[in-house]
Amino acid sequence: MFAVGLMSGTSLDGIDVALVEIDGQGKNTKVNLIEFMTLSLPLDVKEEIKAACSEEKSSVDLICSLNFKLGYLFANATKKVCEKVGMDIEKLDFIASHGQTIYHLPKNKGNLVSSTLQIGEPAVIAYETGIRVISNFRVMDMASGGEGAPLVPYSEYVIYGSNEENVALQNIGGIGNVTVIPKGGDIDRIFAFDTGPGNMIIDEVCSRLFNLAYDADGKIAATGKIQTDMLEDLMSHPYISSIPPKTTGREDFGQQFVDKVLKKYSKRNSEDILSTVTMFTAKSIAENYKKFILDKIKLNKVVIGGGGAHNKTLLAYLREELPNITIVTQDDIGFSSDAKEAVAFVILGNETLHSSFSNVPSATGAKEKVILGNITPSPIRRDKNE
Amino acid sequence: MFAVGLMSGTSLDGIDVALVEIDGQGKNTKVNLIEFMTLSLPLDVKEEIKAACSEEKSSVDLICSLNFKLGYLFANATKKVCEKVGMDIEKLDFIASHGQTIYHLPKNKGNLVSSTLQIGEPAVIAYETGIRVISNFRVMDMASGGEGAPLVPYSEYVIYGSNEENVALQNIGGIGNVTVIPKGGDIDRIFAFDTGPGNMIIDEVCSRLFNLAYDADGKIAATGKIQTDMLEDLMSHPYISSIPPKTTGREDFGQQFVDKVLKKYSKRNSEDILSTVTMFTAKSIAENYKKFILDKIKLNKVVIGGGGAHNKTLLAYLREELPNITIVTQDDIGFSSDAKEAVAFVILGNETLHSSFSNVPSATGAKEKVILGNITPSPIRRDKNE
Repeated sequence: MFAVGLMSGTSLDGIDVALVEIDGQGKNTKVNLIEFMTLSLPLDVKEEIKAACSEEKSSVDLICSLNFKLGYLFANATKKVCEKVGMDIEKLDFIASHGQTIYHLPKNKGNLVSSTLQIGEPAVIAYETGIRVISNFRVMDMASGGEGAPLVPYSEYVIYGSNEENVALQNIGGIGNVTVIPKGGDIDRIFAFDTGPGNMIIDEVCSRLFNLAYDADGKIAATGKIQTDMLEDLMSHPYISSIPPKTTGREDFGQQFVDKVLKKYSKRNSEDILSTVTMFTAKSIAENYKKFILDKIKLNKVVIGGGGAHNKTLLAYLREELPNITIVTQDDIGFSSDAKEAVAFVILGNETLHSSFSNVPSATGAKEKVILGNITPSPIRRDKNE
Repeated sequence: MFAVGLMSGTSLDGIDVALVEIDGQGKNTKVNLIEFMTLSLPLDVKEEIKAACSEEKSSVDLICSLNFKLGYLFANATKKVCEKVGMDIEKLDFIASHGQTIYHLPKNKGNLVSSTLQIGEPAVIAYETGIRVISNFRVMDMASGGEGAPLVPYSEYVIYGSNEENVALQNIGGIGNVTVIPKGGDIDRIFAFDTGPGNMIIDEVCSRLFNLAYDADGKIAATGKIQTDMLEDLMSHPYISSIPPKTTGREDFGQQFVDKVLKKYSKRNSEDILSTVTMFTAKSIAENYKKFILDKIKLNKVVIGGGGAHNKTLLAYLREELPNITIVTQDDIGFSSDAKEAVAFVILGNETLHSSFSNVPSATGAKEKVILGNITPSPIRRDKNE
């Protein structure tokens, strides 16, 4: 059957939409990516998302409205990907939508309880497309005591699990996260955690110092010189050495973090700053591997996915820091890096429809395996709900 | 089968929880209220809700956390009502949760698109109880062009629809809303709209001038004298004469509104002010009937539901203003006023599970009949999802 996966990451790169053919369930799932697009977010919506993510600038009216606005954009993205391949949208069995995270609090903090908030109203997507929507995947894992992230481990287990090799999947989106899949396919031995920043700091620095959305292929970073003192300073961030399971986001490595860094190192050359934060991103990943993975298991392969897989300088730095491990990108081995998360949510949505669990407790810290997500029926077509 | 309905109204009176036996579907639904409770909101949560509803005080971290906090309270309310009747919670087939509205924007306004936001995380309710949850009923109506309210008309049609009489159901919760069900049972002839304030102004005035949560039985209002000039002033509020379909809420008649009124009439006697706002509430209902109902249809009966049904002064004023119509309370005719909305959402949730519509387009302004709500499967028990 056909399904669409929708994802809008914390990096605000745009709306990822994957059209997928999917059959089977669990370890027997067959997934085939038919088409993938990233639709850029309208500038005003991007600004609204940034405001909605900010404790200071956010407000209930903005969040209420933006939830619907994103719903319309997600519906439109679904239509666009179907149009691109000339497929009738009615052929879709379901849409799996991650939504846009606007807040993520993995642990209680003062009066606030651990919780997570993704928006992009599924009812709007379902109404505009006529197709049922599976969404809100993170909340149930959190309800069962997990951190609600990472959720890709399940789909990575389905796609990459091997009987011969210990594989690590490193995603580099706005933040970085890793899934370690020991050979043999036992889901309870999988572990995963957020390694720290992904493209988040690099992109913000690019925007502020070069007025660019990102450092294409890492070309600018390649021209700078790493500032050892600054790198050391960045590496002292407590997240790097904090023990997994752990999750992070814009609240740790977002605008406020970059504000502080740029203020402190305002006299350095812009290219040097970009090289240094790129190395910080690579080294934060490597340090986490050394401390929390390689002490337990010998890795045969690291597969890099997410937008960061295109940053050649970042990859070069990572290979420098982990010289004894084979590092390839998903694309090198025939899977789309860019489509990774959007496809992952199709796999998760498929499990929801099968009333089957899709969290990995060893990755999220959940008390048990639970069925993730909720189902918004097609509002007008009963036959589309079965 | 057994189900629980959960509702937390804009009046912040507490969490309404109804344990119901429900069978059948559509016009053939059989509903029997087994038990009803209202659990008061912890004071700190009440303050958090008020802050979350405020454009100025709200923020994303508060909303994210409160969504989960309310989920835990709703789950607890479900457990409490089952305990009270000694029923094993596993016997529940589903929980239907309206949630807590924190913002409702029926029409586009500046950069904001028409939208509505209810919180009280269904995943938390489903995890804590082990029972599937139907929730987020308003969004789909809004996605189809409606105002997302009122939603009680469908359940009122199911319960009160008559072949002999034209009946109006007047709910007096935080706000007031009416459903007119012409005899004969044709759902497309039903119309409904928010008449204006319900208990919202009365309660706020009680709190500010008497340090009481509400005017029990309308006893204080009965001792005051209606201030004609003030009443006339209040009646000039544009909502009263605005043409249905229309919806209102705390943004029109909440704290800010009461602030202005109390400031302007600060020299009047407190009891007189309470009498006058009580009469304003009654008269706003009556005026709406005269302008937008009695011009089209002869009413045989008005049935009053919601907390306002207990306010004897309010009812006396309403009878004064509508002398030719029989006005009874739901309790007078054997249905619980207090449980009305919580029961309504069980009826709506039942339709969702039957993949059947439950909005009334003539009441909400929606373009068509749609299936409302989304379904959060029981996270751990597959057998509870079928």
